[in-house]
Amino acid sequence: ASLRHAGVSLRCQCIKTNSKFIHPRRMENIEIFPSGPHCSNVEIIATLKNGTPVCLNPEAAWVKKIIDMIIKNSEKTES
Amino acid sequence: ASLRHAGVSLRCQCIKTNSKFIHPRRMENIEIFPSGPHCSNVEIIATLKNGTPVCLNPEAAWVKKIIDMIIKNSEKTES
Repeated sequence: ASLRHAGVSLRCQCIKTNSKFIHPRRMENIEIFPSGPHCSNVEIIATLKNGTPVCLNPEAAWVKKIIDMIIKNSEKTES
Repeated sequence: ASLRHAGVSLRCQCIKTNSKFIHPRRMENIEIFPSGPHCSNVEIIATLKNGTPVCLNPEAAWVKKIIDMIIKNSEKTES
């Protein structure tokens, strides 16, 4: 579950994180919130295509992999 | 400049992208939009702490580096 605040986040938004793999095809976007004064955790929130926000575990290997994969995908579409 | 749509993006949001380095300390969050039917480009939009959205160039090496750095930072805070 996540406490979504529009714009500036005032505190941690993720109560717990999901470590189970979610296929990137189901994702509308991925938001990365650096740690800061408002929250000491890095938070990664994927918004699924059905509108559901899901907190992802920043330390799960698959999370890093799909972020890299999505960004690498930019090279294919533009070249 | 970016055409920010709340929630689901209907078309490309970035008219042009910024390739100049922006220090992650100035960033509130980073949103990654996979390419899809709505837009054939991968789009990465950083929202700065002053609320300004900035479209980043997904192919700029520093963009990938700061995303990796922010995520890796999660290991330090939690261990």
